[in-house]
Amino acid sequence: MILLTNDDGIYSPGLRSAYNTLSELDEVVVVAPITQMSGVGRSISIMRPVRFFEIEIDGMKVFAIDGTPTDAVIIGIYEILERVPDLTVCGINLGENLSTEAVTTSGTVCAALEAATHGSKALAISVEMHELLKFELTCSYDFGVAEKVLKWTAKKLLDKELPKSVDVLNVNVPRNFNGKVAITTLARKMYKTQVDKRLDPRGREYYWIHGVEVENAEVGTDIYALRNGFVSITPISLNATSDCEALRGWADEWEI
Amino acid sequence: MILLTNDDGIYSPGLRSAYNTLSELDEVVVVAPITQMSGVGRSISIMRPVRFFEIEIDGMKVFAIDGTPTDAVIIGIYEILERVPDLTVCGINLGENLSTEAVTTSGTVCAALEAATHGSKALAISVEMHELLKFELTCSYDFGVAEKVLKWTAKKLLDKELPKSVDVLNVNVPRNFNGKVAITTLARKMYKTQVDKRLDPRGREYYWIHGVEVENAEVGTDIYALRNGFVSITPISLNATSDCEALRGWADEWEI
Repeated sequence: MILLTNDDGIYSPGLRSAYNTLSELDEVVVVAPITQMSGVGRSISIMRPVRFFEIEIDGMKVFAIDGTPTDAVIIGIYEILERVPDLTVCGINLGENLSTEAVTTSGTVCAALEAATHGSKALAISVEMHELLKFELTCSYDFGVAEKVLKWTAKKLLDKELPKSVDVLNVNVPRNFNGKVAITTLARKMYKTQVDKRLDPRGREYYWIHGVEVENAEVGTDIYALRNGFVSITPISLNATSDCEALRGWADEWEI
Repeated sequence: MILLTNDDGIYSPGLRSAYNTLSELDEVVVVAPITQMSGVGRSISIMRPVRFFEIEIDGMKVFAIDGTPTDAVIIGIYEILERVPDLTVCGINLGENLSTEAVTTSGTVCAALEAATHGSKALAISVEMHELLKFELTCSYDFGVAEKVLKWTAKKLLDKELPKSVDVLNVNVPRNFNGKVAITTLARKMYKTQVDKRLDPRGREYYWIHGVEVENAEVGTDIYALRNGFVSITPISLNATSDCEALRGWADEWEI
């Protein structure tokens, strides 16, 4: 059984595309946020309760959650499926999810992290897109390549055990596909952050957080792969512990 | 210059405690969310603009943001300070932040990740607390030990370079302090997830996501340290790439 979620919401053409593709492999249960939730990371509703309702969208049964992608995974596993799915798929996301930034700020990738925490195999899949098309539910993007990539990767995950150190596969599909795949590392940064100050109609300041893409991409990284037409698959670990040895000296100097 | 933020909001006694402590070391600029933001992870406002205003709370100047802790760090660096601070401190959080779950779901730890992304030294600090006291802005917790720990750690960070592989220090202070510190790894899980179904006054279902603490804690982990009275310092890396070698075989089998 496959649990399918996303962060673009229940009406995303990417969700529909993933549903059609995965249905060829196994039973698919769709549990997804009602509204657009890009950028919410692994936000989890702990200060308020969540609700969900069952609807049908053009023949696709959907459990629609008034919460985050991570909420959707939790409600999906513990209340709807009442079991850990064989695979959790998050996507297909309208817009690429690359670099260390995506792993903690993307609702798509973080929903996969949440699923992995509960013992599910998990993959996040995103397509590279022009900035103006991202988050657009009416976009006429051709998911042809992405569907093939999703089917291949999902089948692999269903058939094989992942190495114990790998919790999630983060898959990105380029705009100009060269036919090949690259196993990649996370680039350090995707965006150079900027803040735009504007004035509202009453003359008061408000601020847009945005960013421009970094120019350089190191060979071997996910950004480099996509810019060169490769499908990028990055193995992700939940364990963000860094080098403890490097800090042992600190413990010796401890004095408070 | 130290940038100080939190996820419990501008009226948290933990923010005040950190402000008092850090002011003994350097100039402190406080930029924090107006409201309680626990569990929002590295959520970043990309679908709506944010605002901030300057207030004074009992002599502490505060830039109050109508956004997330991550928004606060970005606005703090790019609009208020207009430079990368020498150190970013997130806390003191009312409630411990432990395990791989905290790194991606805690607003406190994620604000530190955001600061590190922009090149700031960064530490998150949290105190272990009984479940009923967490998030309580009127709690009469004694921050004495936490303040000493914060002062020691912040001074170390200001004086020394961290190893390149370490982006953030995640510091947790136990309820029953044994006087010692442990350099720890992230435990895999802190909570066993549960979902509570309830009925609202109109008879409709709603759901609370919560969890009970796991019983076992592996030696060497942050959870084990805290349960045994140690202050826990965990070095965190932004780079969540797992073992690429283990997946190289996949690339050879690629066929779509």
